[in-house]
Amino acid sequence: MNLVHASDLEAIAIGSAVYGTGGGGDPYVGKLLAQQAMQNHGPVELIDPAQIGDDDLVVPVAMAGAPTVLLEKLGDTESVVRALRALEARIGRPAKALMSAEVGGLNSTIPFSAASVLRLPLVDADTMGRAFPEIQMTLATLAGVSACPIAMTDEKGNVVLVDAVDNRWAERLVRSALTEMGGACFMALLPMSGAQMRRSIVRGSITQAWRTGLAWQQARSRQEDPVATLCRVTGGVLLFAGKIVDVERRLDGGFCRGTARLAGLDAHSGSQALLSFQNEFLLAESGGRLLASTPDLIVTLDLETGEPITAEQARYGLRVAVLGIPCVAEWRTPAALDLVGPGHFGYTHAYRPVEQLALDH
Amino acid sequence: MNLVHASDLEAIAIGSAVYGTGGGGDPYVGKLLAQQAMQNHGPVELIDPAQIGDDDLVVPVAMAGAPTVLLEKLGDTESVVRALRALEARIGRPAKALMSAEVGGLNSTIPFSAASVLRLPLVDADTMGRAFPEIQMTLATLAGVSACPIAMTDEKGNVVLVDAVDNRWAERLVRSALTEMGGACFMALLPMSGAQMRRSIVRGSITQAWRTGLAWQQARSRQEDPVATLCRVTGGVLLFAGKIVDVERRLDGGFCRGTARLAGLDAHSGSQALLSFQNEFLLAESGGRLLASTPDLIVTLDLETGEPITAEQARYGLRVAVLGIPCVAEWRTPAALDLVGPGHFGYTHAYRPVEQLALDH
Repeated sequence: MNLVHASDLEAIAIGSAVYGTGGGGDPYVGKLLAQQAMQNHGPVELIDPAQIGDDDLVVPVAMAGAPTVLLEKLGDTESVVRALRALEARIGRPAKALMSAEVGGLNSTIPFSAASVLRLPLVDADTMGRAFPEIQMTLATLAGVSACPIAMTDEKGNVVLVDAVDNRWAERLVRSALTEMGGACFMALLPMSGAQMRRSIVRGSITQAWRTGLAWQQARSRQEDPVATLCRVTGGVLLFAGKIVDVERRLDGGFCRGTARLAGLDAHSGSQALLSFQNEFLLAESGGRLLASTPDLIVTLDLETGEPITAEQARYGLRVAVLGIPCVAEWRTPAALDLVGPGHFGYTHAYRPVEQLALDH
Repeated sequence: MNLVHASDLEAIAIGSAVYGTGGGGDPYVGKLLAQQAMQNHGPVELIDPAQIGDDDLVVPVAMAGAPTVLLEKLGDTESVVRALRALEARIGRPAKALMSAEVGGLNSTIPFSAASVLRLPLVDADTMGRAFPEIQMTLATLAGVSACPIAMTDEKGNVVLVDAVDNRWAERLVRSALTEMGGACFMALLPMSGAQMRRSIVRGSITQAWRTGLAWQQARSRQEDPVATLCRVTGGVLLFAGKIVDVERRLDGGFCRGTARLAGLDAHSGSQALLSFQNEFLLAESGGRLLASTPDLIVTLDLETGEPITAEQARYGLRVAVLGIPCVAEWRTPAALDLVGPGHFGYTHAYRPVEQLALDH
């Protein structure tokens, strides 16, 4: 039995911040919340997807909204549990296990707090292998599994249940309701049978985040280079190193959108880079060339401490390394690129795998 | 037994357009929809509120949204029924009777179409005695009865269930969802026990709309003045007669807001009047004096035909009579005026009953 204790969340939060690819909410807040829950209610059993029966109900729980707002709203396990209960009541049966919708930031750790309080196991998986900003952006959508019903709650006590005709409509209806709820909400969504779940996930992604965080911690304690360590553990490449010289950021329809401009350092001295984000980093460019794009992961790390920096934390003067990490293979099919490729976000760039782009330079 | 047949809907639609006070959606569309349903499924039994058991479930059904959009979306009995079924599933028991949330426009006749298809009786009442633009603006709110759960549907098949902490939050969450649904939606809302219903209604308001419509029809067929007839039947007063010389109208947050400017005719020659609306007419002014304000009813009638004109239909060149009709006494308490008085809509005018204002002139 693979038990996760409160102390393990340090490493899981660091790894989740990496796979959060600049979004997914502040992992620090989610970690504190889960640690508090686990101190009161005990450790959480992390189980392999194969341990779930074909007909058992698995429910991901999450927070959604602009990271700008998630920072202010803090977490609230009670509201997550209320969302789960509303969803269970709608479906007419209880969840056998919880899951992370995304391995990224807040949403890797929030499910631990709910799982601890409810004494439910957590499936070692997520539906993206990273964080994405919109509800329909999951492998579940590609597998034809509905994200609905979705139960949304806020800290005031409001509950909204969404039963949309498809996952893009689910995104639209959830986004409008969470905007009205103040820019963020708690959710239970994407209820799946064990059989559906196994078609809709990246298996072992929580363990992978944990392993990534442990390697990062070890590198720091041995005074090794955390950037090089993360490239090794994640299969990533260093795309750029530079100082943030300009950040443009706006709250827009329940998202935090904008760009960060970097002036090169060291080997990149004299060149500039531009990172574009919608909650998550979506595009990295330099000198008119594409360095990486969604669905590959773009991760910024503080050059001094090696700590992952979210798009929300990006600010003038920070010196950062920009990593490109290959996404899971499932995101590289034409159907997947329709859903989460650059074109969906309004960019005209054609997707090319980050490891191929790196060979061009 | 008081059966309403398809042919009766002509008079009910006219009366509803009067009590719709410029809003409530196009009564013509709702009438056609209900007539079609009743031709296929038979007449509807209109029952007195006293006939409902204390514990029986009564559910109002309605369309909501900007009248501009309601004109385009037409009605769709199937979507109304789907909303009712979603609400019943949420509550866990079936409705014993349907009701109109508002006696006004579309929302007086839409419940007839659902009642006919489902062979359910319709309670002879509504929760306003007129039309109002927002969910919380009902006598139910004043009686402490929750408008939730509310089930919303659209013609695409989306369903949203709202369980808000209070009726103002219900309004906010419904408005944001219906805006995303395209500016209008179908709803089952304000589920009430018979006991709650009896504290939350204007009794007999459907019959009153019917009677008003019959008097109007009779006046027309006898070539009597429909304006004078309507004043007599509704207890209203003629506030102004004039030609519409300017209309300003915009879609704003799921509402149709604006003003209509009138140049006086006959006895009002030389003076101007201004009507302000948010779906419904809210304020009538002339020469800096208040003629009438919400919650009293402001009704415009075509001077040639006597037909009620909605704020949506107001256009340059129309010659109209502006009537002021006293609202029911329940809307004139301080708590009620907080909810639906001029101040709620951002006007600084203090409310004075329309019949008192008329004495000043």
